[in-house]
Amino acid sequence: MTTPQLVQQIKAKKSFLCIGLDVDLTKIPTHLLELEDPIFEFNKAIIDATHDLCVAYKPNTAFYEAYGLKGWQSLEKTINYLNEKHPEIFTIADAKRGDIGNTSTMYAKAFLEDLNFDSVTVAPYMGKDSVEPFLDFENKHTILLALTSNEGAFDFQTNPEVSGVSEELYKTVIKTSKTWKNSQNLMYVVGATKTEYFTEIRKIIPNSFLLVPGVGAQGGSLSEVCKVGMNEDVGLLINSSRGIIYASAGVDFAQKAREEALKIQQEMQEILK
Amino acid sequence: MTTPQLVQQIKAKKSFLCIGLDVDLTKIPTHLLELEDPIFEFNKAIIDATHDLCVAYKPNTAFYEAYGLKGWQSLEKTINYLNEKHPEIFTIADAKRGDIGNTSTMYAKAFLEDLNFDSVTVAPYMGKDSVEPFLDFENKHTILLALTSNEGAFDFQTNPEVSGVSEELYKTVIKTSKTWKNSQNLMYVVGATKTEYFTEIRKIIPNSFLLVPGVGAQGGSLSEVCKVGMNEDVGLLINSSRGIIYASAGVDFAQKAREEALKIQQEMQEILK
Repeated sequence: MTTPQLVQQIKAKKSFLCIGLDVDLTKIPTHLLELEDPIFEFNKAIIDATHDLCVAYKPNTAFYEAYGLKGWQSLEKTINYLNEKHPEIFTIADAKRGDIGNTSTMYAKAFLEDLNFDSVTVAPYMGKDSVEPFLDFENKHTILLALTSNEGAFDFQTNPEVSGVSEELYKTVIKTSKTWKNSQNLMYVVGATKTEYFTEIRKIIPNSFLLVPGVGAQGGSLSEVCKVGMNEDVGLLINSSRGIIYASAGVDFAQKAREEALKIQQEMQEILK
Repeated sequence: MTTPQLVQQIKAKKSFLCIGLDVDLTKIPTHLLELEDPIFEFNKAIIDATHDLCVAYKPNTAFYEAYGLKGWQSLEKTINYLNEKHPEIFTIADAKRGDIGNTSTMYAKAFLEDLNFDSVTVAPYMGKDSVEPFLDFENKHTILLALTSNEGAFDFQTNPEVSGVSEELYKTVIKTSKTWKNSQNLMYVVGATKTEYFTEIRKIIPNSFLLVPGVGAQGGSLSEVCKVGMNEDVGLLINSSRGIIYASAGVDFAQKAREEALKIQQEMQEILK
């Protein structure tokens, strides 16, 4: 999917919501556990109930790998279902991969070609040649970890002890990434819990899309993020996972998930006015 | 596996060689492609031919994920084969994972519990709460990316622009990681191509085990690494992947792999004298 297609979808749906499909078998309705593939059935129900309210879905690969072969199968079925039924939806493999060149190429093929996700999240620690293999894919997007939503982000990303003569690590990461080949295919992860940094980040990448986790369960504020992070093309994908998909553990889980997604979509619609 | 058990194995085998099982279907002998699970059959043959010459095997998960479900199945069969036939061997899931706390816990369970690897490689960018969930597992090891073997390591890990008032990023990462809960379960990835940094690193972590990729195909030197990186317990796991497993693409591939592994083991035996 191209960025203009994503922007068009945001404007059509009046939403820039991304729903995280982080399926934990201990949290999903027990009646699903009797089915052959509970994880896929859960995702399918969530997707059917919310696809008109969001523009992206983001399965975090950890939750699928945790169930081994069956989990990987559920991931494949989920992305295939999305690509067949809702090709207009932007799909994100939240994998946080990154390795030496020839190895990153294998990851890039796995997620952007074979599974055919629109994008994949990548960790920057190993630098240029660990990220560029992901950038090679046309109309695919590499979402680089810049400033993450967790407490640990303060260990290195913003740590003054790591801050350079000129700037903090997350800034160097963002600036350097702009010099990489096909950097037009880059988006960035910036946590909703770090709004005080958005202004600085927008100075470096005014036009890039930001994938923003941390609204909801992690305590970030949608309106705060929009105030400091939005650009003419909106430029934001706000992710919510647990707050939506686990709104209810009963048979009404999909309906309740829709209600939670609708609340956020309506808040977004107001903001977009 | 405990660290003393690993050290004991190193002394018994007079080897601290780790063989990387990075299986690429385009590089393995064509006669294997007719078999039901070529990747596992390749690994099984390599393991059978080399297990007395090395102390660890390191499948890089990228090479398995690249083949989707079948690849994941090959990875499961490979680790199960190692755990059943060679429980004395140290196993490393080279996955380079790392995510927010609850998600890292899922990855940790997947690799250290379900697949039952002895260790997993983890990326530090997201900090403490992204790594500690891996450290919770008793007699399991978390191998943190410190100074990687690739060119991109110079982008951030050693970049003076990122170097703090006091030190470079890789040093802050290593020092900080020592303050984390259960840090006794930490080992570190330090590339063989970066020998000029080993002395500095050993000042910070004199006793930790270092997983050292980059000997062979990437151009690092075994003797150089040993000069600057070895401690009383050896403290090194030297990885070679392509140089051993792709020594021949013919029916003699396992024998040729053994010959390459033997050359390295004999060099190690000399060094250990």
